[in-house]
Amino acid sequence: MIETPYLLFLGDAPDALAAKVAQGIKDWRPENCVGQFRMEGCQADLGLTDMGLEEAKAAGAKTLVIGVANRGGKISQSWKKVLVAALEEGLDLASGLHNLLQDEPDLAAVAEACGRSLHDVRVPEVDYPIASGETRTGKRVLAVGTDCSVGKMYTTLAVDKAMREAGMKSTFRATGQTGILITGDGVPLDAVVADFMAGSIEWLTPDNDPDHWDVIEGQGSLFHVSFSGVTMALIHGGQPDALILCHEPTRAHMRGLPGYKLPTIEAVRDLSLELAKVANPACQVVGVSINTQHMGEAEAAEYCAEVEKRLGLPTVDPFRHGAARLAEALAAL
Amino acid sequence: MIETPYLLFLGDAPDALAAKVAQGIKDWRPENCVGQFRMEGCQADLGLTDMGLEEAKAAGAKTLVIGVANRGGKISQSWKKVLVAALEEGLDLASGLHNLLQDEPDLAAVAEACGRSLHDVRVPEVDYPIASGETRTGKRVLAVGTDCSVGKMYTTLAVDKAMREAGMKSTFRATGQTGILITGDGVPLDAVVADFMAGSIEWLTPDNDPDHWDVIEGQGSLFHVSFSGVTMALIHGGQPDALILCHEPTRAHMRGLPGYKLPTIEAVRDLSLELAKVANPACQVVGVSINTQHMGEAEAAEYCAEVEKRLGLPTVDPFRHGAARLAEALAAL
Repeated sequence: MIETPYLLFLGDAPDALAAKVAQGIKDWRPENCVGQFRMEGCQADLGLTDMGLEEAKAAGAKTLVIGVANRGGKISQSWKKVLVAALEEGLDLASGLHNLLQDEPDLAAVAEACGRSLHDVRVPEVDYPIASGETRTGKRVLAVGTDCSVGKMYTTLAVDKAMREAGMKSTFRATGQTGILITGDGVPLDAVVADFMAGSIEWLTPDNDPDHWDVIEGQGSLFHVSFSGVTMALIHGGQPDALILCHEPTRAHMRGLPGYKLPTIEAVRDLSLELAKVANPACQVVGVSINTQHMGEAEAAEYCAEVEKRLGLPTVDPFRHGAARLAEALAAL
Repeated sequence: MIETPYLLFLGDAPDALAAKVAQGIKDWRPENCVGQFRMEGCQADLGLTDMGLEEAKAAGAKTLVIGVANRGGKISQSWKKVLVAALEEGLDLASGLHNLLQDEPDLAAVAEACGRSLHDVRVPEVDYPIASGETRTGKRVLAVGTDCSVGKMYTTLAVDKAMREAGMKSTFRATGQTGILITGDGVPLDAVVADFMAGSIEWLTPDNDPDHWDVIEGQGSLFHVSFSGVTMALIHGGQPDALILCHEPTRAHMRGLPGYKLPTIEAVRDLSLELAKVANPACQVVGVSINTQHMGEAEAAEYCAEVEKRLGLPTVDPFRHGAARLAEALAAL
């Protein structure tokens, strides 16, 4: 259990997107955030109070959460001085990065000396099974995207919230470090060993009440060559009854892949549905979630209306418009 | 990288099938085998010279490879005396068994004391990168299947051999335990952490001569819900220029999944090609490999002819007919 509240560490984030972990925690659990810590050159800003370590400790912070990701998920050497000082100041550390706090000898030694805890939420703590492919009771919805980082976690958190507000039975199922940091539970899918990926998602979304929905956070994209295998495992391990398509319209190319254009929403719809039907022939696409953060209000509304007309599916930006229409579409299934 | 040549350890194999890993090494890389080591009661015989450890060392052996599998894939206590003596004699050990050489305290201690290496080919020995998706020089062909265990390794080993016999530049790229033991090198893909799967295949098939072919061993199937993510990573990490479709016609259902029927070869062709084109728009399907081990000679020939006519692609069982026609199809690309 990670102690709250947090000081969110943004490090030397080169852009706002690099700090999406911190952004997610701030958006979904603002009550857990006392402030943000930014290093020189940091290009991300959550709008929280900038705090030093001592100030954060005085304000009640219990844990410094690394809310920024490098490509490859490494703990940067340039962060070390801050992380060591945070431990010495009396803060625990929490991280969802690939290389582990507990594997850094300097951090491990200082944590031990100061009696602090190092939380690596990415480390799988379960021996997941190999997927059986057997049908499970209850309903599942999965977010699939045209690209990485297009808003799949936001969408599923918002849908879960909207469903519960509508009196439906719903559980958000985290599959990434931010979701796990927010909910305290989930599968760190990108750190799971290949053979057990689909099995870990079966484990995460077990038999449930017939009217209960697991709202499964998506990862990667079938069209993102670095991470498509992870997406595939979610589609087959999740056995979704419903898919929500996620898109960010202003991307020039696939994230981290300058040579790759984004697919159309239609291409993601068709390919995802075909693959999902292998595990669940009844699967349907129920709606579209557009991430309009780089668009003005009118432009966003116009874009969503255009997609809604084109695909014949409820289309919203859950952040701007709420996810009630997506929840309604699921309730109608 | 496992040092060759090998002494093949057949242990106390109860029958020939138990030594199928050793058989594969002997069949595909006879030049890597100086001899075989058989314990009392061993019922397998590869037809290699029986050698003691000292004799094998004198004959140039660098590594004793455990080419036999017990029920449960365990390292037998009765083998330990030989394994320890092999290390003391100056041989490395290599194994693809479930439980690891390096987890056996006695073997680890002797290896350390003698300065020898323990190669557990189920465990990745490399920190693979995240896939960049960048185009690489040289050509690549990947085997994709309707199911697991339909003959993808056999097909790619045979195609590699046929290409080299035809004077083409070709390298078999192993992605599973047996393939790695055969060639001494490769990626144990099913044990790679999710985020690095595609990157490990990029690492395995780097830039090469424009007329060089990497022949990539396939794994799983896009239609096998337990392992489809692994297959996906091969398709996107491998960036294949060519696909070979592999099928075993007598399966009643997907391996290990009684509720799942096999897809048609056409379904595998269409889905694999669509996905492969994301990473390599020029990718083509060049041929079909049928595993006819459960069919008679006439039935096998008839089946292959029928598929060849239906799909308009060269169709062979590489075990019965050789892989020359598949190599020709690749040469013609």
